[in-house]
Amino acid sequence: MINNPSSPQRWALTLAYNGAYFHGWQKQPDGVYTVQAALEAAISEVAAEAVGITVAGRTDAGVHATAQVVHFDTHARRSEQAWVRGVNTVADKHVRVLTAQPVVAHFHARFDAFGRRYRYVLESGRVRSPLLRGRAGWTHLPLDMAAMREAAALLVGEHDFSSFRSSACQAKSPIKTLYNIRLAGSPAFMVLDLHGNAFLHNMVRNIVGALVYVGSGKLSVAGFADLLAARSRQTAPPTFMPDGLYLVGVDYPPEFGMSTPPLPPWLWPDI
Amino acid sequence: MINNPSSPQRWALTLAYNGAYFHGWQKQPDGVYTVQAALEAAISEVAAEAVGITVAGRTDAGVHATAQVVHFDTHARRSEQAWVRGVNTVADKHVRVLTAQPVVAHFHARFDAFGRRYRYVLESGRVRSPLLRGRAGWTHLPLDMAAMREAAALLVGEHDFSSFRSSACQAKSPIKTLYNIRLAGSPAFMVLDLHGNAFLHNMVRNIVGALVYVGSGKLSVAGFADLLAARSRQTAPPTFMPDGLYLVGVDYPPEFGMSTPPLPPWLWPDI
Repeated sequence: MINNPSSPQRWALTLAYNGAYFHGWQKQPDGVYTVQAALEAAISEVAAEAVGITVAGRTDAGVHATAQVVHFDTHARRSEQAWVRGVNTVADKHVRVLTAQPVVAHFHARFDAFGRRYRYVLESGRVRSPLLRGRAGWTHLPLDMAAMREAAALLVGEHDFSSFRSSACQAKSPIKTLYNIRLAGSPAFMVLDLHGNAFLHNMVRNIVGALVYVGSGKLSVAGFADLLAARSRQTAPPTFMPDGLYLVGVDYPPEFGMSTPPLPPWLWPDI
Repeated sequence: MINNPSSPQRWALTLAYNGAYFHGWQKQPDGVYTVQAALEAAISEVAAEAVGITVAGRTDAGVHATAQVVHFDTHARRSEQAWVRGVNTVADKHVRVLTAQPVVAHFHARFDAFGRRYRYVLESGRVRSPLLRGRAGWTHLPLDMAAMREAAALLVGEHDFSSFRSSACQAKSPIKTLYNIRLAGSPAFMVLDLHGNAFLHNMVRNIVGALVYVGSGKLSVAGFADLLAARSRQTAPPTFMPDGLYLVGVDYPPEFGMSTPPLPPWLWPDI
């Protein structure tokens, strides 16, 4: 447990958390409880020095992660076990370190990521399942998945996603590339998988809000195309609830040895 | 909304609830918050008269239901919609009425049930998934499913289940019949399905506790057989946590028109 002041070591962690217990990812000046604040405190305790962490993709209040990635530098010399078990012992139980690995000093959790994967879990039915509260979005409206798929397909590729961008978004550019989008399951319980290079603030929840409009007939597929082309939230359907949103993977070039994990067995991977 | 004092009507409801938000099913004299208390208050409000409910199977604190059944009598004349939407509007959001139907006056939710179905969801891994807290049991021990299956099979049939019976159990007899037991999934995430005529207090959680001992090598299959034969909790492994336990169905003779619903799509029905 001796810290060496001369040569910091960079570590990468993968994390899972239940977003319902935190006010989003990012540390706030006024002591609001966030994942970053909870985790930095725990890592600093294990490191016996102040440690700041850098995240692959910030998430909002209520948004979950099954494979978030962060990196940090420390002079502390600790084993992989210490960063997993040690941090989990002192950290809030609603955030867990899944894996820890030493990485090269120039690895950057955010700038080296070329892909992010999100899954949105959506329930539709006249009664909301109490066991899905905080785990899935819900609408009482019956949904037409064929129409939703047709609309979703329009999003694939490079687009200006301003129509799905929160006014609080700090991204330099609204132009992002969606590699793939997939809607699967049944009208009563479906998953929307999105894989893109990066996502604007609230982008997935705004896409889900618009797709629910399409699925329920409030918006046509042509209207959805117009919405994307409008590059404005002026006529956009409302942002959907965070409950069903999970960050499920971050992609890095293979040389970093950071493989994207498969979906966990409980997140309905076979849908 | 006029109540008729002359002829009460009997209704049956199916319910789902998240057991983590209640101190068990049964109403307590000291105002402890239970599912029964929450639901009776909501039904009484909709009925505009005091209504008492009778349940198919009481569940403990932390135990969930996806298809619990109750019946009640009321002089109120209300539509099926009123008993579903009306009750859901005023009830705690963590308990939901899924369906309501009028039944014959001699239908009894508890005494007419000839079968109860439980599912226990179990995670095994070195880190507990934060999103499964309150939804699945967890052990850090690696589990041998083949050994667990062998032990579980010994429980099928009519047995004196005293070795899996809580000391607080009020059942007249410890002899129950387990129609079927099934363990499926993977060592990291498995489900245990139990179908029996009735269950003793804590019986499923005690079975899970013993099967986890078998799966982790702390108890042999022969030792499990001895435990069943001992008809005593003296040497029994501890009761497992309630988080992963779901009452998923109650069976009635067909003449009552109360069909047992399939597993909901989110409760990993295809495992």
